[in-house]
Amino acid sequence: MDLHKIALEIRRAFLSPDLQNLSLRNQALLAMAKNLQTAFPEIQKANEEDLLDARKSDLAAPLLKRLRFDEAKLHQVTQGLEDLARLPDPIGATTLARELSPGLKLYRVTCPIGVIGVIFESRPDALVQIASLCLKSGNTVLLKGGREAMRTNACLTKILQLSAEEVGLPGTFAQLLESREDVQAMLSEDTLIDLIIPRGSASFVQYIKDHSRIPVLGHADGICHVYLDRDADPDTALKVALDSKVQNVSVCNACETLLVHQDRAEELLPRLAEEYRKCGVTLRCTPDAARYIPDSTPATEDDWKTEYLDLILSVKVVSSLEEAIQHINTYGSHHTDCIVTENREAASIFLKQVDSAGVYVNVSTRFADGFVYGFGAEVGISTGKIHARGPMGLDGLTTYKYKLIGSGQTMQSVRDGEIQYTHRDLNEVCPL
Amino acid sequence: MDLHKIALEIRRAFLSPDLQNLSLRNQALLAMAKNLQTAFPEIQKANEEDLLDARKSDLAAPLLKRLRFDEAKLHQVTQGLEDLARLPDPIGATTLARELSPGLKLYRVTCPIGVIGVIFESRPDALVQIASLCLKSGNTVLLKGGREAMRTNACLTKILQLSAEEVGLPGTFAQLLESREDVQAMLSEDTLIDLIIPRGSASFVQYIKDHSRIPVLGHADGICHVYLDRDADPDTALKVALDSKVQNVSVCNACETLLVHQDRAEELLPRLAEEYRKCGVTLRCTPDAARYIPDSTPATEDDWKTEYLDLILSVKVVSSLEEAIQHINTYGSHHTDCIVTENREAASIFLKQVDSAGVYVNVSTRFADGFVYGFGAEVGISTGKIHARGPMGLDGLTTYKYKLIGSGQTMQSVRDGEIQYTHRDLNEVCPL
Repeated sequence: MDLHKIALEIRRAFLSPDLQNLSLRNQALLAMAKNLQTAFPEIQKANEEDLLDARKSDLAAPLLKRLRFDEAKLHQVTQGLEDLARLPDPIGATTLARELSPGLKLYRVTCPIGVIGVIFESRPDALVQIASLCLKSGNTVLLKGGREAMRTNACLTKILQLSAEEVGLPGTFAQLLESREDVQAMLSEDTLIDLIIPRGSASFVQYIKDHSRIPVLGHADGICHVYLDRDADPDTALKVALDSKVQNVSVCNACETLLVHQDRAEELLPRLAEEYRKCGVTLRCTPDAARYIPDSTPATEDDWKTEYLDLILSVKVVSSLEEAIQHINTYGSHHTDCIVTENREAASIFLKQVDSAGVYVNVSTRFADGFVYGFGAEVGISTGKIHARGPMGLDGLTTYKYKLIGSGQTMQSVRDGEIQYTHRDLNEVCPL
Repeated sequence: MDLHKIALEIRRAFLSPDLQNLSLRNQALLAMAKNLQTAFPEIQKANEEDLLDARKSDLAAPLLKRLRFDEAKLHQVTQGLEDLARLPDPIGATTLARELSPGLKLYRVTCPIGVIGVIFESRPDALVQIASLCLKSGNTVLLKGGREAMRTNACLTKILQLSAEEVGLPGTFAQLLESREDVQAMLSEDTLIDLIIPRGSASFVQYIKDHSRIPVLGHADGICHVYLDRDADPDTALKVALDSKVQNVSVCNACETLLVHQDRAEELLPRLAEEYRKCGVTLRCTPDAARYIPDSTPATEDDWKTEYLDLILSVKVVSSLEEAIQHINTYGSHHTDCIVTENREAASIFLKQVDSAGVYVNVSTRFADGFVYGFGAEVGISTGKIHARGPMGLDGLTTYKYKLIGSGQTMQSVRDGEIQYTHRDLNEVCPL
């Protein structure tokens, strides 16, 4: 596989004028939904072969489940494509219109980023989601999925490509990479590829960042906190603290550290510990907290920095809202953090001062998700602060350009005083 | 200088709640304007010393001019601060408000990025501009200016710090780095610093990118094009092509390559060549173009990739609009490119398909500038596509966070069907 040739091809696909046509993009999404249904037996066959190999190599049960592309997944995926086709165009929107001087107008217009490389895990349905989000936003995409899903991914990619071609768009808008060497080669194509989105472990994301000049968006870790404030409603505290930890422990938006205000520890911790115990959660506590949770293990400094992704929770008693915020800003991963409180001012301070992509009041951290936010889906969750933060949907896949429309204005005539700036904001969309 | 200690201090300054107070930030900007005026003799003295040393080491005349901080610069800088104080708050704006389900509301609210490191050239007035843009947007800033401006920069930084303290903001919001070693140390503080903005040569920016895990925004090169279309108005063509090249040759938004449609080469090139000759511009031409410009030098492949920053222009005849666009997308640096045409459709195609931060119709490329765009000023011009593109003013210095406000919602209750998503967009600002 000649990655450079593929990168050139996909860049050419990105520059194809047809890709700017919303109607063609939406038609392609609907064709994908139709063709995935028609070709389902073929997909199933490829998926069966992948599953067979995975079982042979003793893939863990949860991974096998993610690898499976069954009728339920097909339904979910085609539904997603149809929903996406109905969403408004994320590109071509005028976000600034300004008269610089009479007859000279500046417009800021949203546009696609270009060629995006996405590295994702074993779920083949993620491939369809990612590729379709990229297409809807006018981008082209290099896809690298899990090795164990190779046959399913190849089959899905072929169907997506043919669907694009069917409506007159370049089939090359999406290309599947096969090996780690391809990924390595992709990382060095910094003049042809505009953005890399790696999904996976924190160390993997860091590896990608360290080995490429291409901008990387991704999440490092999901160390999420729930803070039970002095003015927390006890029922809300229990519901939110429990759901954030146990509803699904293996995801990045699950809670890893519980902070409790000292005035509420005696009341809340024993009740919470009992609920956690029922769910099999091991608690790692500071001495303050352990007083109310007799059978807990002591927490160490390392616990505050650890994403367990497991039935483990670290627990700390704090003396104030400020201490809670400081703990989160020091040890958290800027993903999603929640305060449980009935106090409006405390909520406001927490939301303003916690330096995270998601800051929640009285709601489980598990809600940090592109589908939940109504973004259609997500290509990833960004814990960085540059470009996109939190769940990255269509908006995160766009950038903008400045269009300046004049009639022969020169900088010399500005210097000569013939042109004066008016800087008058206009209420209009870019006409070109 | 202990850079790690400084980075910790400046991070603490960023997390100070007072920095979120717009009134305090504006008061600080006005205090800066006042104090710079009062302390002008002191600034002048420092600047004189810098100038003396610079003359001793035979600094080139244009650099000496940039280094000088005289009354005119003082006036410009204080005027800039007063203008900035009048601009609306770039942070705290609600850019999305959505009901996820009854009683559960999502808001996307703009906020500062955090700690920003800016490396800039010899102009001491740039220091005030950059620091004040960062403060207005709620950010804190590590500043590294040119070595030859060290005394002036130290004096200016002290005044800015004292002005912040005067109104009750942390003086540590801005800190001056002294040496290259400090810059090196800054690049490794990726948990404390959120963004690096290097200004300088393309190779310098690349060096910074290669040596840091911190996201970097900056411009690589300014290879700007003017394309004279088949339907160009001849006077506009002359004015725009000339101004883009000669009004100031040493800046990134000056034109380096002129593209001319073959049907207009015979008419336009001789007239243009005559004007360029008067201004002392050397023309490097393809054979097609050289036919109409007898005394030109031949252009090589390298010319299309070169930012001359000098009285040199490469000239190419193209057979179509498409060829012009392809040339720009292949050899350009995605900075600013202009079409001269009276044909609306040609203009529209050019604006849509040229993959640059600035795409212009009938106006000199020299207009690509934050002040010209009405952004107050700029911290730099981004030729990248991620986060900010083109002149980076206050908007480019902000990011956003998602605030989710609920009343005990759990993901389990969604799974149990007790909560259904409504995804209804709301017309309101975030109340917290």
